Amino acid sequence: MSPAVTQESRDAVPESPIAKRILIGDPLASQNADEHLLPKRMALPIFASDALSSVAYAPQEMLMILLAGGLAFVAFAPWVAAAVVLLLAVVVLSYRQLIRAYPSGGGDYEVARTNLGEVPGVVVASALLVDYILTVAVSTASGVDNIISALPVLNSWRVEMAVGCVVLIIVVNLRGVREASRAFAIPTYVFIGSVAVMVVVGLVRTFLGAAPVASSAQYGMHAQSISQAAVILLVLRAFSSGCSALTGVEAVSNGVQAFRKPKIRNARATLALMGSIAGLMFAGLVTLALIAGVKYAENPCDLNGFDCKNLPQPSLMAQLSAATFGMNSIPFFIVQAATACVLLLAANTAFNGFPLLGSVLARDGYAPKALNTRGDRLVYSNGMILLGVAAIGVLVVYKANLSNLIQLYIIGVFVSFSLGQIGMIRHWIRGLRRLATLPAAAREQQLARRQLWSYRKGLAINSMGATMTVTVLIIVTITKFTHGAWLVFLAIPILAVLMMGVSRYYRDVEHEITIDDTLHFGSTGDVALILVNKLQKPVMKAMDYALAAKHEKTVAVHVAVTKEESNALHKAWQAHAVPIPLVTIESPFRSYAGPMIEFIKQYRAEHGPTVITVYLPQYIVGHWWEKILHNRRAKRIAQQLMLVHGVTITLVPWLLDSSELIYGRRSRPVLGQERAGRPFSPTARFGAARPPRPPQ
Amino acid sequence: MSPAVTQESRDAVPESPIAKRILIGDPLASQNADEHLLPKRMALPIFASDALSSVAYAPQEMLMILLAGGLAFVAFAPWVAAAVVLLLAVVVLSYRQLIRAYPSGGGDYEVARTNLGEVPGVVVASALLVDYILTVAVSTASGVDNIISALPVLNSWRVEMAVGCVVLIIVVNLRGVREASRAFAIPTYVFIGSVAVMVVVGLVRTFLGAAPVASSAQYGMHAQSISQAAVILLVLRAFSSGCSALTGVEAVSNGVQAFRKPKIRNARATLALMGSIAGLMFAGLVTLALIAGVKYAENPCDLNGFDCKNLPQPSLMAQLSAATFGMNSIPFFIVQAATACVLLLAANTAFNGFPLLGSVLARDGYAPKALNTRGDRLVYSNGMILLGVAAIGVLVVYKANLSNLIQLYIIGVFVSFSLGQIGMIRHWIRGLRRLATLPAAAREQQLARRQLWSYRKGLAINSMGATMTVTVLIIVTITKFTHGAWLVFLAIPILAVLMMGVSRYYRDVEHEITIDDTLHFGSTGDVALILVNKLQKPVMKAMDYALAAKHEKTVAVHVAVTKEESNALHKAWQAHAVPIPLVTIESPFRSYAGPMIEFIKQYRAEHGPTVITVYLPQYIVGHWWEKILHNRRAKRIAQQLMLVHGVTITLVPWLLDSSELIYGRRSRPVLGQERAGRPFSPTARFGAARPPRPPQ
Repeated sequence: MSPAVTQESRDAVPESPIAKRILIGDPLASQNADEHLLPKRMALPIFASDALSSVAYAPQEMLMILLAGGLAFVAFAPWVAAAVVLLLAVVVLSYRQLIRAYPSGGGDYEVARTNLGEVPGVVVASALLVDYILTVAVSTASGVDNIISALPVLNSWRVEMAVGCVVLIIVVNLRGVREASRAFAIPTYVFIGSVAVMVVVGLVRTFLGAAPVASSAQYGMHAQSISQAAVILLVLRAFSSGCSALTGVEAVSNGVQAFRKPKIRNARATLALMGSIAGLMFAGLVTLALIAGVKYAENPCDLNGFDCKNLPQPSLMAQLSAATFGMNSIPFFIVQAATACVLLLAANTAFNGFPLLGSVLARDGYAPKALNTRGDRLVYSNGMILLGVAAIGVLVVYKANLSNLIQLYIIGVFVSFSLGQIGMIRHWIRGLRRLATLPAAAREQQLARRQLWSYRKGLAINSMGATMTVTVLIIVTITKFTHGAWLVFLAIPILAVLMMGVSRYYRDVEHEITIDDTLHFGSTGDVALILVNKLQKPVMKAMDYALAAKHEKTVAVHVAVTKEESNALHKAWQAHAVPIPLVTIESPFRSYAGPMIEFIKQYRAEHGPTVITVYLPQYIVGHWWEKILHNRRAKRIAQQLMLVHGVTITLVPWLLDSSELIYGRRSRPVLGQERAGRPFSPTARFGAARPPRPPQ
Repeated sequence: MSPAVTQESRDAVPESPIAKRILIGDPLASQNADEHLLPKRMALPIFASDALSSVAYAPQEMLMILLAGGLAFVAFAPWVAAAVVLLLAVVVLSYRQLIRAYPSGGGDYEVARTNLGEVPGVVVASALLVDYILTVAVSTASGVDNIISALPVLNSWRVEMAVGCVVLIIVVNLRGVREASRAFAIPTYVFIGSVAVMVVVGLVRTFLGAAPVASSAQYGMHAQSISQAAVILLVLRAFSSGCSALTGVEAVSNGVQAFRKPKIRNARATLALMGSIAGLMFAGLVTLALIAGVKYAENPCDLNGFDCKNLPQPSLMAQLSAATFGMNSIPFFIVQAATACVLLLAANTAFNGFPLLGSVLARDGYAPKALNTRGDRLVYSNGMILLGVAAIGVLVVYKANLSNLIQLYIIGVFVSFSLGQIGMIRHWIRGLRRLATLPAAAREQQLARRQLWSYRKGLAINSMGATMTVTVLIIVTITKFTHGAWLVFLAIPILAVLMMGVSRYYRDVEHEITIDDTLHFGSTGDVALILVNKLQKPVMKAMDYALAAKHEKTVAVHVAVTKEESNALHKAWQAHAVPIPLVTIESPFRSYAGPMIEFIKQYRAEHGPTVITVYLPQYIVGHWWEKILHNRRAKRIAQQLMLVHGVTITLVPWLLDSSELIYGRRSRPVLGQERAGRPFSPTARFGAARPPRPPQ
């Protein structure tokens, strides 16, 4: 027995079919994982695209809500925008603390679970999972919307384009982290650059007296008559929608481990940079939109003068870039292309975060273990596919309508923000308590004093963060609940309960299968039964293998459902002189398993308990549809026999020709031909030791 | 080894869970099959409900087409109806010949296959399969339509009701033939009786000068202006729709074997009786409808004066019974209830025919063998479920709209009618040729003369039948093709090609696995590998079984994906003193199967070819959702190892507690406790030999 196996044996992973290989690339070894870590300039586009891209839709959705109340409400816009930017700053500061304290990548989930307990942890996880799905949906919908704003002819393909984009993102991500990042770095930087240029150009033109004017500036609006009391609600709703600019801030804290060393410092720097850029862009875009007089309506037909029947309403970004650079100019298309790209990259962020969270949850026992199975490319394929399918579902149901999707959005984010921040407060308080228990002398040491200062700073920042995020969560809940967000409030607890259930289930099973002191080896007896229906090669191979295993007893069993079959078998048995005794059991109910079970029970009753090995030939097929045509009966029999005391099932594979086409090789050693060195007959078309054909 | 197994062991079929038992009833033994044969009075409702129920919609659909041309076209109605009745008579006569010649129940499929060859046989089979589905859909739609005609408040639930009815029929049928027949006999007779009474009462009232007047008689019609040339087409279309009265005539010929002896005579008598009743009812209903002046429009809003927005258009049956007995009178409800019931029974006819045909096809290798697996109740469950699901699909797509469904209908029937009749011509000609080859003396014998006469009679009748059915098929094709029937013309060849493909596939496989002279027993060598990840009870049981089987070598193999796992395993191995050598293989690609495959190949390369038995523990779970949480990795590994030369997979079942809940018993003999007679520990909660608890 040789335990040495070559380390770098590429042959050892030949299972993936070629199509998969082309789509996904070559498999990667674990030891290469370090090379896949991200430098800051790469981490920014990967982790920041979500947060940055939010500025493509957050100003638009904010203005849209305000305009629903009438043109006068635009006056509130600067204040609402300022509140959003302030909130962004506080959240970024808070997350810098979180990264320092919990750099392992568990993010809010880990913080909440460690400091607040299992249930808050699971709630955070559920909220994040829901929000990852919505991030993909919202970002893709907005990206497609910006493509359509530039190319209105595509309007009728909105949903199809959105679904196609998600599929593309899935494929790109299944190829692995670094390739994704490399392809994704450019558009993010182009987006930042082009928006900056646009804002600057717009502002300069304004100072020069040639302020850009949006195409929608001329339209009137059907102002809904709004009660005085509803004004505050409207402003708060606008604020809620504006807060979608904050989504994605948490992405960095979940991905600290993907950074190059020093991981924590790099992650914090990336987060600060990202926050600053996002804040500046958001403020700049709102300012420019107000200058250009952009109007955006939830229902485009509310815009007086706009041909809502035939044209899609252009996005705020498209209106601004058209106003600044001119419609259909080259810079206009650059801005739109970069916006669309960065929004699709934002969807990609979720494809980094979701499977990672899924695998953390699987590791902790809250999700099926299949989510913790790394795919070929060091990524968590199952989680990615799950996320993609869910997002496609949401996009199809909501017809890729951004304004409707936004209503579901950010609730999950703020649930996890809030619980994460509260958890951080607990964390710092614990730290301070621990310091307080130190002896006075130790407390005076420089390290301890520095720690004390750092803990106090963390406590202060996270307290502020918690206060603000909880407040916003309440506002968001109040203003969005009846606009579709109730669905999210339904989904989060359902997911959480499912996770708790999975966790309890795995714990029960673990308990059930843990070895205790009562276990001893000592099964005795060894009988092989081969289930025979017709005498054909697969069952002959099974019998051959059973003989090779030299069981104490080897018996062929025939369950006689019809007399014709039974007679034919007995004739064939004699004709081929099979060296195994054949037992026939009557089956009055046409069941195969039933009489077998009865037979096994009776045998064990008469001969004492033994291990019964039942040999079943199993067809190996090449196409999915062949499975419909094979193995049904064998599978049913196996399932039922497995419930019987002392039975094990031995599957003897029989590779059909079609499987050879697929797997590209023969591995059907039949009845000892090759091994026993018997002469090979030309009528047998299989076997590795096939002699070359004589030339004809 | 005791081959004797009790014949009537009810225990032998304990597999069905309780829910299935309650829904479907107790299993039945093969030897009871004879008791399930049908006397004529029972066979009539079972096999005739399709043909008889057709008269509930055929007159209506025939009149509807004529009325689409204008009120004047009603004058054609008697002639069209007469043509339909004539055709019915010819087809019934033809099928009486077919039953005589082919009583085995294969019907048109068998006739076409035997006399015309494989392709016509498969085409007939496809046509019949399609028409069985449409029979269920059309009959259910019409049944629900008649319910709604009596209770218009149900109008908004049309599709839901139709789907519900099909589900009900599936369940009833899964319970088996006789129970179905018993429940179904009464409404068929009530239907025949009530329609007869209605027609007689209506005619008597007409003779007494108080002719019934339909509620729709007052309405005008939007007559489409029709070109002179289209008149013939319209009349032919009306004839085509009227021919739907003929559907179901073939049912008896497919079910001869279900009749009591003398099977042939009983079946022929039933067929003749059925034909006569159907012809009389059809003629009677058309007559009454013309007297009462019934109007029926494809689009109800074409009826001037009818409140088409709020009311469903009442069916012809409902209009007649309301006109004859008075709306909402007790006889009115009896007629409607009987009509609805008999239509649902007609759907039931298909549930007798479809699975039977499916199993015949499966037996002949044209359909997956799973269709030939009899369920517990002597019925072909898989076929029934397939039919039900397909019919539900059609009903949902066509929104249970009878007039649209009728357009697809009867094409399949007439394809099989035509090919069947042509096949019969061939059959009689062959018979006559055989007689002609007899020596002159033999030809003069009385038997031969009687045969000659009988063959000539058959030839004459079936020639007439073939001529007429082929003509009708052409008419039906011309008039219905553009009205939706193209779908059927697409479905039939697709099904036929699929069947041919399945047949070729099974033949290829059969050829591939047929034993030839090159087979000898002679595999040598016998190594057991147990794949170990963590040391837990399931893998301990697997190792115990492997030891009990006394392989030449027994080795535990650990694929080391992470170091932590590996170290933990080695510690546990020593702690539990496992008496099996442990081999550790590194897995740089995190694959389990890859390194195993490499290891096996290398072992075989070094030690010569041997049979390698890989032991894998398999969790047996109680709930479907548990499958998501288990066995994923084991299944993947097994699939990949099965492709390797010389490998067999031995599944050692481990029943989780949840499976015990479902299957109601423990059968987990763990590690020889019970068998080796070791003291039983109270900490182990399993094992059949559990001692009774002391009273507390």
